[in-house]
Amino acid sequence: MAKLKPRTLSGFMELLPAPQQQMERMMETLRRTYALYGFTPLDTPAVEAAEVLLAKGGGETEKQIYRFQKGDSDLALRFDLTVPLAKYVALNYGQLSFPFRRYQIGKVYRGERAQRGRFREFYQADIDVIGDGTLDIVNEAEIPAIIYQTFTSLGLHRFQIRVNNRKILNGFYAMLGLSDRAGAIMRTVDKLEKIGPDKVRAVLTEEDGLDAGQADAVLAFTQIQGSNDAVLAALEEYRGKDVLFDQGLEELRTVTRYLAAFGVPQSHFAVDLTIARGLDYYTGTVYETTMLDHPEVGSICSGGRYDNLAEYYTDKALPGVGISIGLTRLFYVLNEQKMLNPALPTAPADVLVLPMSPEELDYAISAATRLRAAGIRTQLYCEQKKFKAKISYAAKLGIPFVLFLGGSEREAGTFSLKDLRTGEQSTLSPDETVAAVRAYLAESAAIAPVVER
Amino acid sequence: MAKLKPRTLSGFMELLPAPQQQMERMMETLRRTYALYGFTPLDTPAVEAAEVLLAKGGGETEKQIYRFQKGDSDLALRFDLTVPLAKYVALNYGQLSFPFRRYQIGKVYRGERAQRGRFREFYQADIDVIGDGTLDIVNEAEIPAIIYQTFTSLGLHRFQIRVNNRKILNGFYAMLGLSDRAGAIMRTVDKLEKIGPDKVRAVLTEEDGLDAGQADAVLAFTQIQGSNDAVLAALEEYRGKDVLFDQGLEELRTVTRYLAAFGVPQSHFAVDLTIARGLDYYTGTVYETTMLDHPEVGSICSGGRYDNLAEYYTDKALPGVGISIGLTRLFYVLNEQKMLNPALPTAPADVLVLPMSPEELDYAISAATRLRAAGIRTQLYCEQKKFKAKISYAAKLGIPFVLFLGGSEREAGTFSLKDLRTGEQSTLSPDETVAAVRAYLAESAAIAPVVER
Repeated sequence: MAKLKPRTLSGFMELLPAPQQQMERMMETLRRTYALYGFTPLDTPAVEAAEVLLAKGGGETEKQIYRFQKGDSDLALRFDLTVPLAKYVALNYGQLSFPFRRYQIGKVYRGERAQRGRFREFYQADIDVIGDGTLDIVNEAEIPAIIYQTFTSLGLHRFQIRVNNRKILNGFYAMLGLSDRAGAIMRTVDKLEKIGPDKVRAVLTEEDGLDAGQADAVLAFTQIQGSNDAVLAALEEYRGKDVLFDQGLEELRTVTRYLAAFGVPQSHFAVDLTIARGLDYYTGTVYETTMLDHPEVGSICSGGRYDNLAEYYTDKALPGVGISIGLTRLFYVLNEQKMLNPALPTAPADVLVLPMSPEELDYAISAATRLRAAGIRTQLYCEQKKFKAKISYAAKLGIPFVLFLGGSEREAGTFSLKDLRTGEQSTLSPDETVAAVRAYLAESAAIAPVVER
Repeated sequence: MAKLKPRTLSGFMELLPAPQQQMERMMETLRRTYALYGFTPLDTPAVEAAEVLLAKGGGETEKQIYRFQKGDSDLALRFDLTVPLAKYVALNYGQLSFPFRRYQIGKVYRGERAQRGRFREFYQADIDVIGDGTLDIVNEAEIPAIIYQTFTSLGLHRFQIRVNNRKILNGFYAMLGLSDRAGAIMRTVDKLEKIGPDKVRAVLTEEDGLDAGQADAVLAFTQIQGSNDAVLAALEEYRGKDVLFDQGLEELRTVTRYLAAFGVPQSHFAVDLTIARGLDYYTGTVYETTMLDHPEVGSICSGGRYDNLAEYYTDKALPGVGISIGLTRLFYVLNEQKMLNPALPTAPADVLVLPMSPEELDYAISAATRLRAAGIRTQLYCEQKKFKAKISYAAKLGIPFVLFLGGSEREAGTFSLKDLRTGEQSTLSPDETVAAVRAYLAESAAIAPVVER
């Protein structure tokens, strides 16, 4: 029969078993951490009516979306988890309790041009807190704690959470009478690092239409840097000139004030006025998270406060705050940087049970059943192979323990347990065997999926 | 602004938060159980090249598949997890160790006609063991243990695993010289319950072309019922007439012989010669699992032994054995039958922390941080609402504990913990609070997601 060449689409991550175990551990860590903060898991369809997904319409999204007909239905694959959340909250508004805190870890789809490190199917891991009409600022103050806990639980420590407030930016531009040009100005200011202050000033005055005083004021504002206290002190100089600005400054002070109580070290947090994010969506605190040793990766966790989650579907005011981790891309980057912890167990089982002859099969099955009842992941290996091939199977998969069961073990009711990492072999009672493997499991449960070098 | 009516496509399950927690617990139970038996998790794309998914071609699959173009690519959503596994194993053959044991819990897509209880997007939860050239019969004997452990872990006890062997069926038809008509005959015999033995005999002789002796032999074979021992004894009468039959009988004996060692009670297992399953795919042991009180649901876990997992992609002989649970449908059925355990905690948090005034905010944040560090799912509630509304928020979500923090608690360094289930309130030290909540968590961890009435 003619064979079809098996292949996986480019831009679609498909992992071998060992890295998949790393990925699973990362997802499990995210689920556990998000749950610790009172977020409930949601699972929405990957396919939605195209008109629902594209209610907002426009631009890049529409070009990248996977859209197709089935019968009379115009369908599409979701391109993020925010639009489905908006639909979900609008649809189930009467049955939800607010603030509604949900997490979702799911695949989304974007038909981008394929290139290395860009994915067309990728996991996002999102949390959002949605208020009904209002939402307390403490929810915004809590987000850095969640980001901090998430990454340290993954084993990542050299990162910084950078925070700004859109009201400060918008209020500042309002002071200068530049509200209508804020977008263009911020895009120009964004080039500061690349082209330097002189060229930025030139673009501001020549292209963005600022006068010299305005351009100086904008440049001076971008120079506000330093410790959190220094930045806040510098911002105080602008207080009293714009209501929105003052409100943003208060919010920023609240967010920074409770960091210690939330368990976030100052070292991992920075007020950074250059952070703007989605210009037409976020309205309060905005967040980015950067790896200190890999700034080139960009933000690995971003989000912010918004005023209207579901304005395309409902008149209800649904303010919220949320963050998103691009998990597939993060995994890709960590792998590229050799930061996936090789010490993390990736074997499919903790123990491989080897009956030495068919006479021990009954005994071997009982042994495996005993270990499984104790919560030990156990594989029974009964293939007709040479002894060396069996050991090499365990070694290749990284299975730490092999249980040999021959006639003498069967008669004595004992197990011979070999630790493949040390080569040590001991004859143990079933209980001792369970205790030995459990000691290993307790140790390995503490191993984080990410390691820094 | 004109609003778009939010909606979720029909045939796509989207759960409210509480049932979603039930579903999550079921998935977690499946992951844990599958892992106990040495299966490693895989995650393959939901989108594949259409030609890869349709390599086998034909029939219903092609009609139901979601297929679409993106640029020059002819794509499709996967309709099961077996074809992607076959592709994966063929593609990564050199990097896998065999037997390769994988589980996958993932969404699949079938554009069936929408009707109640039928889903177009649904989870399958599959395990497969794939051998390289050969695969020991013990792998087939182990499957009933996995099915048994899976359903009892979910909280389901009134079910039966029904097992047959295709070699017995094929061998039996070969004895009668009816190999080429086995398919048609089995379809006729399948109507036994519906139309009775006389009409079946009539169809066998008039439509399927059997002579009277053959029809009697077929009908006699279908009458083999009773205890496992009785069925096996009856099958012994046919031994020695066909090599394949004898081999199947040996396999069936092996599968039944080790049940006790694998921890499967006889009560949950039945040899059932009426089970055939996919006629052109399975070649050895076949499995079905039925709920004793809900036979109308059909099999909730099915599978079997096959000889060639990936014949469309490779010349390598890759025999395997696998089972699949239609998780979304199972969840739907359990919900319809009111078998989702209402005692299973579905709250987003274990503790709701309520600062009594803004003065206690710092103290409340520290309290929440302390509880989270102890692994307790904690939500900080700071919305400006009346006291009653806050309590009712916790009650509606089923959050079992509320932590009140006022001035006296702050000054004394204590927490006031209210158990909303009993109404009891106590003033405790932080350590005592952690201990009290942990006692509840230990209890509730033992609650299964399914309950029988």
